[in-house]
Amino acid sequence: MIPVPSPDRLERAQRAVAAAGWEALLLSAGTDLRYLTGYNAHPSERLTCLVVPAEGESLLIVPELEAPMVKAAGATIGLRAWAETEDPFALVAGHLRKVGPPGRVGIGNRMWAEHALQLGSATGSRAELAGPLMAQLRMRKDDAEAAALFEAGRAIDRVHARMAEWLRPRRTEREVGRDIAEAIVAEGHESAEFTIVGSGPNGASPHHLLSDRVIETGDLVVVDIGGVTEAGYFSDSTRTYVAGGRVAPEVIDLYGVLQAAQEAACRAVAPGVSAAAVDATARGIIEQAGYGANFIHRTGHGIGLDVHEDPYIVSGNDIPLEAGMAFSIEPGIYISGRYGARIEDIVICTADGVQRLNTGSRDLLTLGA
Amino acid sequence: MIPVPSPDRLERAQRAVAAAGWEALLLSAGTDLRYLTGYNAHPSERLTCLVVPAEGESLLIVPELEAPMVKAAGATIGLRAWAETEDPFALVAGHLRKVGPPGRVGIGNRMWAEHALQLGSATGSRAELAGPLMAQLRMRKDDAEAAALFEAGRAIDRVHARMAEWLRPRRTEREVGRDIAEAIVAEGHESAEFTIVGSGPNGASPHHLLSDRVIETGDLVVVDIGGVTEAGYFSDSTRTYVAGGRVAPEVIDLYGVLQAAQEAACRAVAPGVSAAAVDATARGIIEQAGYGANFIHRTGHGIGLDVHEDPYIVSGNDIPLEAGMAFSIEPGIYISGRYGARIEDIVICTADGVQRLNTGSRDLLTLGA
Repeated sequence: MIPVPSPDRLERAQRAVAAAGWEALLLSAGTDLRYLTGYNAHPSERLTCLVVPAEGESLLIVPELEAPMVKAAGATIGLRAWAETEDPFALVAGHLRKVGPPGRVGIGNRMWAEHALQLGSATGSRAELAGPLMAQLRMRKDDAEAAALFEAGRAIDRVHARMAEWLRPRRTEREVGRDIAEAIVAEGHESAEFTIVGSGPNGASPHHLLSDRVIETGDLVVVDIGGVTEAGYFSDSTRTYVAGGRVAPEVIDLYGVLQAAQEAACRAVAPGVSAAAVDATARGIIEQAGYGANFIHRTGHGIGLDVHEDPYIVSGNDIPLEAGMAFSIEPGIYISGRYGARIEDIVICTADGVQRLNTGSRDLLTLGA
Repeated sequence: MIPVPSPDRLERAQRAVAAAGWEALLLSAGTDLRYLTGYNAHPSERLTCLVVPAEGESLLIVPELEAPMVKAAGATIGLRAWAETEDPFALVAGHLRKVGPPGRVGIGNRMWAEHALQLGSATGSRAELAGPLMAQLRMRKDDAEAAALFEAGRAIDRVHARMAEWLRPRRTEREVGRDIAEAIVAEGHESAEFTIVGSGPNGASPHHLLSDRVIETGDLVVVDIGGVTEAGYFSDSTRTYVAGGRVAPEVIDLYGVLQAAQEAACRAVAPGVSAAAVDATARGIIEQAGYGANFIHRTGHGIGLDVHEDPYIVSGNDIPLEAGMAFSIEPGIYISGRYGARIEDIVICTADGVQRLNTGSRDLLTLGA
């Protein structure tokens, strides 16, 4: 069973809403809603909307046909189910107008425009993004969340540990990817969420997923995979493999640079160190080796109920890291048209340093030789 | 291979933008973007934005690390890749300001609020929902789309045809659901998208997914399942089964009413008939039998690149059906705390009537007896 979140989360949110000078926080289906209430609504054209006013009772407005799911999730919040031909936006407006005239509201960053614009019309309130407020609530993982991320990390490590079962020359990326996706579920996830198998030149496309390309002997293969556990927490880990041996000395050199950069960035994590400084640590090593222009993305992203969330480990983000913050460290080097390499671990900043949630070998392993 | 959409789609969109008096249409990652360009971007905090101005060149603004994926998708549109620390919102504003001062823009209905609000700030343009415009472009499926929906329908029919392999008393919904999800992929989908196994009282919760409830002998079990094919088109089909026999006569009666309602609504589909009239056909039969209050959702939803899209088959939607429109017909009857039943087929309105894409038996089959 997934524990229902402590009512404390909703109380902290309400205090933050009051401090922001908003009438209310409005959250549609998504992880912010799940974080505060435990209810994992699925995104839909039918409006689900949690109203957290600066003062008074919070209210969850849900489509009637989904009301039983809120109860099944154990959420104890006040509920207003709307029938299929009712206007849910008017219901939100009605709840807001109980507390005062139209002012400013915070809306969830991933609310769909169709809901945001219709809420704006119905309420007359001016919308601001609630992302920074929600990030403040969600960035520091509590012990139960850290345990959930550990569990996800161990599960994806078990999948990487089995990679030799599937990854070898003469199979297509798609065939390998399907096997991996099955294993992601078998090893302890509720679902496989992404499966990148970037072989040879496809490895130079960081977000390449799967293709019908046949893996060749000597290919570098970037395998970036993750899933979500029953508790809703993500795994995300990348290893780069060699299919069947025979890589050029330049590849060994490049990989050594990458490995050193990833290791140094992980070791740089500590409370008070800025996110930007961790990025600069990885980037500096890669730049010094002459690959700066080939590291075309940030060093990492926060992770939790979302696979990408605050804090982002990127130049310009001067937020100081704090105990409980969980994020990826994933530098990559991409040689366009030829190959790419990336190494990714999820880490948690602790009171006195860092703990890695992914612990499998980061060496350039040859499989299927 | 998935064919790249005809440039004609983008031209029709541009004409519609001009007719709407908008500066441009702005679409982030999602199915509207895929429909117009063939590029299936994944939703992300990193902005992907297609700008379709009323006149002049369209431009696709993408994160640099995803630019290779646009080329791999075969999209021939003008591309502007933004580096990780660039401001993509300023790039959109720059492209708009080439054509004139700030006015009105259409934004995709499912654009995230964080993108919509930042685009608003950067461009100074007033956002309106592009949903109705995109629905006009997408609602009438062309022959290739109809063929893709047929293929998806046949694939999900093959899964229902195998249901006796998995569905029987003493298994949990979750065990059955995992087997079904594997079969959805094995029978021809790229991924399983939803797997509802609502046994006994859980069947009365229309959007219930899976639980650890052990299926009992004599349970009614609602199985509502779908996936997405490589071409991006959804399947969605519901059958209600009996686990192991022995249902009460009242259940047989209720199911007979439901089956008659579903059949009549399917037969009511024809060009010129309104969506609301199809809903009224199913609803009338269920109301006459005394179950009106137990049919708590609309009769159906359009389907294509989204599992829910226009046209919605619901009271108040007076849109006349036209050849090429594809949607579900899925009345249900729910007895709270006891059981539920639903029958769902995808149908396409044809020049002279209707064609069903799901053709498996709609009788109340007993499995695992």
